[in-house]
Amino acid sequence: MAGVRPNIREMRGYAPGEQPRDGEIIKLNTNENPYPPSPRVFEAIRSCLNGEQLRKYPDPIGTSFRVAASQVLDVDPDSILIGNGSDDILTILTRTFVPDRGVIASPMPSYVLYKTLAEIQNASFSTVQFQSDWTLPKSWPIENADITFLANPNSPSGTVVDHSSIEDLISQLNGPLVIDEAYVDFCATNCLHFTKQRDRTVIVSRTLSKSYALAGIRFGFAVARPEVIREMVKVKDSYNCDAIAIAAATAAMEDQEYLSQIRDRILATRARMVRELEAFGFMVTPSESNFVWCRHPIRSHREIYEALKNRRILIRYMRYDEYGDGIRISVGTEQEIDRLFEELRGLV
Amino acid sequence: MAGVRPNIREMRGYAPGEQPRDGEIIKLNTNENPYPPSPRVFEAIRSCLNGEQLRKYPDPIGTSFRVAASQVLDVDPDSILIGNGSDDILTILTRTFVPDRGVIASPMPSYVLYKTLAEIQNASFSTVQFQSDWTLPKSWPIENADITFLANPNSPSGTVVDHSSIEDLISQLNGPLVIDEAYVDFCATNCLHFTKQRDRTVIVSRTLSKSYALAGIRFGFAVARPEVIREMVKVKDSYNCDAIAIAAATAAMEDQEYLSQIRDRILATRARMVRELEAFGFMVTPSESNFVWCRHPIRSHREIYEALKNRRILIRYMRYDEYGDGIRISVGTEQEIDRLFEELRGLV
Repeated sequence: MAGVRPNIREMRGYAPGEQPRDGEIIKLNTNENPYPPSPRVFEAIRSCLNGEQLRKYPDPIGTSFRVAASQVLDVDPDSILIGNGSDDILTILTRTFVPDRGVIASPMPSYVLYKTLAEIQNASFSTVQFQSDWTLPKSWPIENADITFLANPNSPSGTVVDHSSIEDLISQLNGPLVIDEAYVDFCATNCLHFTKQRDRTVIVSRTLSKSYALAGIRFGFAVARPEVIREMVKVKDSYNCDAIAIAAATAAMEDQEYLSQIRDRILATRARMVRELEAFGFMVTPSESNFVWCRHPIRSHREIYEALKNRRILIRYMRYDEYGDGIRISVGTEQEIDRLFEELRGLV
Repeated sequence: MAGVRPNIREMRGYAPGEQPRDGEIIKLNTNENPYPPSPRVFEAIRSCLNGEQLRKYPDPIGTSFRVAASQVLDVDPDSILIGNGSDDILTILTRTFVPDRGVIASPMPSYVLYKTLAEIQNASFSTVQFQSDWTLPKSWPIENADITFLANPNSPSGTVVDHSSIEDLISQLNGPLVIDEAYVDFCATNCLHFTKQRDRTVIVSRTLSKSYALAGIRFGFAVARPEVIREMVKVKDSYNCDAIAIAAATAAMEDQEYLSQIRDRILATRARMVRELEAFGFMVTPSESNFVWCRHPIRSHREIYEALKNRRILIRYMRYDEYGDGIRISVGTEQEIDRLFEELRGLV
């Protein structure tokens, strides 16, 4: 294609997990929440169903969400930026901080999108492998990185890097650190307090896709010092979140009790999955997320994935250069996991 | 802010039109549709209100919308790219075609965002003034432009460049031409056929914010040859449109009869506005959009804007370097325009 930038022409593009539209399938491949969102979300969307909300432009900065989230998270509303999913937040961060031929760094295996963001921005992607226990790599960090992404909890491992390692990391970095907390509601700690440091730039990215069961709505947000948020506002599309998404996200954030209920169910099912997968001979990485990462010492991961897919259970097969492969299974409902283990019994 | 790219640090950011949230106000400043969207849109959104649609990721490419739009517009579904508003489409185009230190060109006065997109991409913005009758400038086009934006109908003028001038323009350009048809449903012609040319890259951008009364929903789309769309898909966020927006946009596109009804009402009100504004002594540019651009030979445009705002009628005051200022008034309901003229009577 004439005119297309070489970095775009040469890249393959990020391939999201399969999203089958038809038929009955047990979907354990993209870490969606197995439970519906809070009933308050449905009410909030219904209250948008008047001509005014749909025909008029939405609030560019999502004031209602900012206020709700600032109360739940105990941060300044001006330290919150709304995004059309956390992918939008990660894109805005890249465009704010990474120049042409700049450097994006992230340990691997991790969220594959970080590399795609580097390709789109015509930056290089610099990565070092996690240690075998999923602690931060040794020859790390990449000091000249224009931005460093750390998914915490990480995907596909579901593991968390502890606070003191993150403190060390921050002190060694010249550029900003983005802590991608997409899965943070399924673990015991979070890194919000790091965003308040005045001498370093730390941004926490969150999404409502997983814990709040709103992947269909596209809503994420960033937390950082207000002066960082102000720069990011310049880069985002003026109206990056729609009126319904803002209302839905606000209602979800305000219902912390519901969040806590479905989280408890997910954590209970996760514990069961780990036990039973280990009984099948899998090596299961201790997870602090809504999925588990497992590898089998003998059986082919790809074959397990394909056999389950033939039985209409979708899990995620993942292969990383230099690291190898494995399967990532999202936590489903108890009934979905019953079916998973029924089928696995015949396979492994 | 340490680490922020200089081009971002130095830019001011695009300032969208005022979006007051509280109180009764007649809003004629951002070209929203004065009528609600099609009743089918409300039905479509209600049918999304089940846990499944909200908790699962949406269709990345919006197949239902692509099919509906391809039938209405008589183009290949693969020649359509969905966007989170047409601003998302314009951002994707910029990132696909414009390298660091590249050139974005557009005649002026036009949509101010084009310059902002250049600033974010660290590109230069090259512009030449329209001729006084709003035909294309003489020393035009900018031959080395990596992308050329032409808003057609244009804002703030509401005028349309004819097909033969666009044909000439395309033949003179080396880079792609983006014809921004945000307001096309309010005029008699469109440029879709240019996108099918095989030897030149022409992209048409559309939005559902104006004619389909869905500004709150954020939905736009691009039409171009499938090989252009494939490159743009690599650059967009995987899930750039949410499940509800896709359903709403599909339903709106499928109800062409409703579109035609509200368009007729808007065009009738527009004709009345032109007549009465001229009677007040304004010079009104003949409009093929859902707004009118007018200048008064004696009175201060800014004062008219402010006086109306004090009376809770919001219009758009616009000032462009080298060109001067004027006011842009969106077509409202008949009652809203009654109020506008009542107030103007005391002012002009």
